Amino acid sequence: MNYYPLRATGYLPETLILANGSFPKHPLLLDWLKRCDYIVCCDGAADDLLQRGIKPVAIVGDCDSLSASSRSEFAAILHPDSDQETNDLTKSVRFCLAQGRSNLTIIGATGKREDHTLGNISLLTDYMADAQIEMFTDYGVFTPISTDSLFQSFAGQQVSLFAMDAGELTVTNLKYPVVRKSLHSWWQGTLNESLGNEFRIHPTGSVIVFRVY
Amino acid sequence: MNYYPLRATGYLPETLILANGSFPKHPLLLDWLKRCDYIVCCDGAADDLLQRGIKPVAIVGDCDSLSASSRSEFAAILHPDSDQETNDLTKSVRFCLAQGRSNLTIIGATGKREDHTLGNISLLTDYMADAQIEMFTDYGVFTPISTDSLFQSFAGQQVSLFAMDAGELTVTNLKYPVVRKSLHSWWQGTLNESLGNEFRIHPTGSVIVFRVY
Repeated sequence: MNYYPLRATGYLPETLILANGSFPKHPLLLDWLKRCDYIVCCDGAADDLLQRGIKPVAIVGDCDSLSASSRSEFAAILHPDSDQETNDLTKSVRFCLAQGRSNLTIIGATGKREDHTLGNISLLTDYMADAQIEMFTDYGVFTPISTDSLFQSFAGQQVSLFAMDAGELTVTNLKYPVVRKSLHSWWQGTLNESLGNEFRIHPTGSVIVFRVY
Repeated sequence: MNYYPLRATGYLPETLILANGSFPKHPLLLDWLKRCDYIVCCDGAADDLLQRGIKPVAIVGDCDSLSASSRSEFAAILHPDSDQETNDLTKSVRFCLAQGRSNLTIIGATGKREDHTLGNISLLTDYMADAQIEMFTDYGVFTPISTDSLFQSFAGQQVSLFAMDAGELTVTNLKYPVVRKSLHSWWQGTLNESLGNEFRIHPTGSVIVFRVY
């Protein structure tokens, strides 16, 4: 069974992907940005990072939102990819996989255009077979699963489940049972909460789990 | 065929539901808040609105995020609903339907906790059979559809499509054809754009369309 621990400040992500949404505000994520030695930026996100004196190992994307000065100063770490079929976060994930990185932590992927937020969250399930992949926001962490999974938690932690397809799912040690209300809805219980130090999800399809910090 | 016009400042929503996400910043939405005479607030959103000198006709929700002073001062327009199975936006939509309102414009429903954002967007499809329902954010408008639909647009308008179930869909007058890449993904083309003054969507399931302003 897959196990998903809670991450605290002491944790150091192997690979950090900074997407082009709102720049992270949460201290946990800012600490990771300071300490992680393998940061990949989606396009214009690099400008925000460079302003804070942090240099990524790579800048990936179609380079349409990167400033001209960054484009020229950091040409050596630029990996332009103009594929119109994918977005910058997908390109960055693929870049990391091609570099042999298999433990990917995505931050900065929400908070601006909502269609980008939805697209970025949705793509987590596209890559869960290829990598250990999670997305941390200012509010919590998204984890995609498709097999029995055990999550570290704490009593009262708010937990939301989002189904990606029509599969049923059952849960253990969450306050409310999950009853699939509609096949036409992603929402599988935004109001749930953990009853203790861990909870389990048994999906028959793809599910994205959100644990609020 | 359903037709979905673009909304400009001159438009006045019949019913405005202010959800408990980030307070709207877009001038279009601020103008509506000033002029609309039927505003329903989800719980704590009423505090933000009252601070701006605007009084809603009703405050709906479990009242856990409303200030004590608002709770007492506006007791007459309070409609407490402690159903744990639904969120405050669902409760507000149901309240409006019960009041005979059938043209619902939701604002302020995104921008804070991402699980709330996803839940709020997802519930659009739950009520599209009961009401004309759209959600306006600071970036664009979400419209749920399940039948042939015609959208007013302009050349170059960015358009995103999100599938709620496994149905196929075809599009007319969008730049890129929509090819369903995965059954395990909501994302059906965040990078699409309109080729002219209108585009059509022919869904076989439920789809949420996002038009960027």
